[in-house]
Amino acid sequence: MADNHSLENLVQALRRLPGVGVKSAQRMAFHLLQHDREGAQLLAGALQAAVSEVRHCALCHTFTEDEVCATCRDPRRDRSQLCVVETPADQAAMERTGAYKGLYFVLMGKLSPLDGVGPRDIGLDKLFDRVDDPAAEVPVREVILATNFTAEGETTAHVIAQALKDRGLQVTRLARGVPVGSELEYVDLGTIAHALVDRR
Amino acid sequence: MADNHSLENLVQALRRLPGVGVKSAQRMAFHLLQHDREGAQLLAGALQAAVSEVRHCALCHTFTEDEVCATCRDPRRDRSQLCVVETPADQAAMERTGAYKGLYFVLMGKLSPLDGVGPRDIGLDKLFDRVDDPAAEVPVREVILATNFTAEGETTAHVIAQALKDRGLQVTRLARGVPVGSELEYVDLGTIAHALVDRR
Repeated sequence: MADNHSLENLVQALRRLPGVGVKSAQRMAFHLLQHDREGAQLLAGALQAAVSEVRHCALCHTFTEDEVCATCRDPRRDRSQLCVVETPADQAAMERTGAYKGLYFVLMGKLSPLDGVGPRDIGLDKLFDRVDDPAAEVPVREVILATNFTAEGETTAHVIAQALKDRGLQVTRLARGVPVGSELEYVDLGTIAHALVDRR
Repeated sequence: MADNHSLENLVQALRRLPGVGVKSAQRMAFHLLQHDREGAQLLAGALQAAVSEVRHCALCHTFTEDEVCATCRDPRRDRSQLCVVETPADQAAMERTGAYKGLYFVLMGKLSPLDGVGPRDIGLDKLFDRVDDPAAEVPVREVILATNFTAEGETTAHVIAQALKDRGLQVTRLARGVPVGSELEYVDLGTIAHALVDRR
């Protein structure tokens, strides 16, 4: 439509969202303009606020609006433990368990050589600075690798483990095994094999 | 995250997009903040521009930035024909065929009594005003109903057809039949039955 640049621009801008193709973008634009202009304005404001306010925690690299995030500031957390996760969503999943009281380091990505994502792109230097920091009140003693159990997550964990072991740190990995509530019959072979090797 | 209101607000705002749940919204927010802040700002601007610029064409009710849209202004179009479609996307599909030279009326919805969408919500009054308009240079002679061939689209077409026939207008419906390029073996029964009845 030659006279409808704003609508065209909106559809193009919506396509920058991950997982949104041209049909979805058109449906979203139609919905917002026809049924939810208030939502469109709300989203515009939220995007601008987030872009200007959200930055990375100086210690753990997660999203925060402060210099240091609430978790890293919390005096009740065990500063000698550092759990390495890929994304804030993974960190949130760990937090929901209530089973971990240490600090985090959020990679904000994973090593993926095929996609050209190397150690520098996911802030591994920052992680090494973090664990080496001589100014820390309590030095990091244990690093728990909680990257995903995918090929890329395992590679990332492997690379980090190698680098940290050279520094004399204790490096552990979340246990592989049979998920709680599952029946052996339906669990994949690799998982059972790992659970057997790591039996305790 | 207690210290991260902007991020929380962004996730909530993204959930107002149709088909976006909490997981997708989190993924979108993460992607924009980590990898595409330029895209986030672009989207914010596009949303605001669209909300302030895009309105409804005074004649056909579609989205436009002008008082009357480009199609309705086009002097080469046949003003005696009016094609009724549900959405601008349907209008675009009709235009792509290149087979229609008349004008449009875009309902911006469909009758859906189960969802509480009645004649008033989809601008049927506007459609009746449009076809009755005594000030029009060329009166509308034929109304072509091109609502979707779903239960709701058929209901909408039926209601419009009844009202317009009472006004003495010629009302037609897109032909139902076997899609071009399809094999009878794989076409559903209802379609074949309709194609048989409407054979020519």
